Amino acid sequence: MQGTSQPTPPADTYPRTDRTVPTRSAQKAAYDKELVHAILDEGYVCHLGFVRDGAPVVLPTLYGRVGERLYVHGSTGSRPLRMAGQADPGLAVCLTVTHVDGLVLARSAFHHSVNYRSVVVHGTAHQVTDPEEKRTALDALVDHVVPGRSADSRPGNTKELAATAVLRLDLAEVSAKLRTGGVNEEPEDLGLPYWAGVVPVRTVYGTPLAEPDLAAGVEVPGYLSEL
Amino acid sequence: MQGTSQPTPPADTYPRTDRTVPTRSAQKAAYDKELVHAILDEGYVCHLGFVRDGAPVVLPTLYGRVGERLYVHGSTGSRPLRMAGQADPGLAVCLTVTHVDGLVLARSAFHHSVNYRSVVVHGTAHQVTDPEEKRTALDALVDHVVPGRSADSRPGNTKELAATAVLRLDLAEVSAKLRTGGVNEEPEDLGLPYWAGVVPVRTVYGTPLAEPDLAAGVEVPGYLSEL
Repeated sequence: MQGTSQPTPPADTYPRTDRTVPTRSAQKAAYDKELVHAILDEGYVCHLGFVRDGAPVVLPTLYGRVGERLYVHGSTGSRPLRMAGQADPGLAVCLTVTHVDGLVLARSAFHHSVNYRSVVVHGTAHQVTDPEEKRTALDALVDHVVPGRSADSRPGNTKELAATAVLRLDLAEVSAKLRTGGVNEEPEDLGLPYWAGVVPVRTVYGTPLAEPDLAAGVEVPGYLSEL
Repeated sequence: MQGTSQPTPPADTYPRTDRTVPTRSAQKAAYDKELVHAILDEGYVCHLGFVRDGAPVVLPTLYGRVGERLYVHGSTGSRPLRMAGQADPGLAVCLTVTHVDGLVLARSAFHHSVNYRSVVVHGTAHQVTDPEEKRTALDALVDHVVPGRSADSRPGNTKELAATAVLRLDLAEVSAKLRTGGVNEEPEDLGLPYWAGVVPVRTVYGTPLAEPDLAAGVEVPGYLSEL
């Protein structure tokens, strides 16, 4: 039935599912892969949700994207990583990335909002066991935080790789959600004597603070000034 | 047994529970109420986790704090709000707030990290039915985004309040987790020719962009310059 009721999505979009079509504000949802990738690639901290003893748990953690796969990592002793390793066939997760772009101040309290871009990924996370994939995933994690950094640091050794668990989550059931633009307002509120508008929000990076014991001649790398 | 094995925590800390003591990095966890409040009060977007059909869902949403209670809101038609209304006795949630303070670049890929402060709240969310509590909660939500704003906008009317559902979550099972400071490194890596240090990260607000149709004489309010 799915084949007839839901047309195959174009190759450049994620299919809509019951979980990725919101009950409200469906007009804000988007499924374009390029847009989803752009939102994901701009960030490095996600909020990872899983279920433990029937209750939800949401933890902030770093992530990286490689094509149509996301990776998160952690100590082999950390809770979600252990749970994914124990569970067969994997750990049900929801991985969410959010960027705030602006504060939307309306004349009415009710129409206050935030401009944002978010991506929500539903799926099953699996432990990565292939050493090559694990290394690629960890490089992607480091390069999400600082593009170019993985090539300019000492790679993980066997002991470090063994102590690190990596989870893979395919980008299959995915949606983006965004709000952009100005203020929505009731027509009758337009004359009220309150300021209304958008306050842009962005993340900035300060001057890098070098460790006091750098090897002689080591300078601030160029990729840090491009952050 | 709990009374003998777990001493009553001081009034200024949240009790430690199985869910709030991490399996790893327990030294980073904190239960001090003042610290938890400060982290919560610095933000306005949380990631709210709940379980739907056995699977986790994590959605970004605005929140506000009033004393030892958090509030989130949404359309009465939105999924978690409907679920909390239907469910008895409430909806099991995990609410997480995270601030990133710095990128920690070590000489080794393995020791890369992020300085951050986060709060994780476990509990059961209940729909707020008392109109006075609902109004207080919505004011707190607006004032979390821009302190002082709720008093300088048109309050919600009966119709708007009816269209808005508010969930209350008590701050009872709560922990903060943080990483601060410089780079951890293996002693044998200290001489490697890679830059190491911390790149500060912060959120900044741009020049407010006023709507084009403000009432005559309305100026940018002072509280926006204090953001």
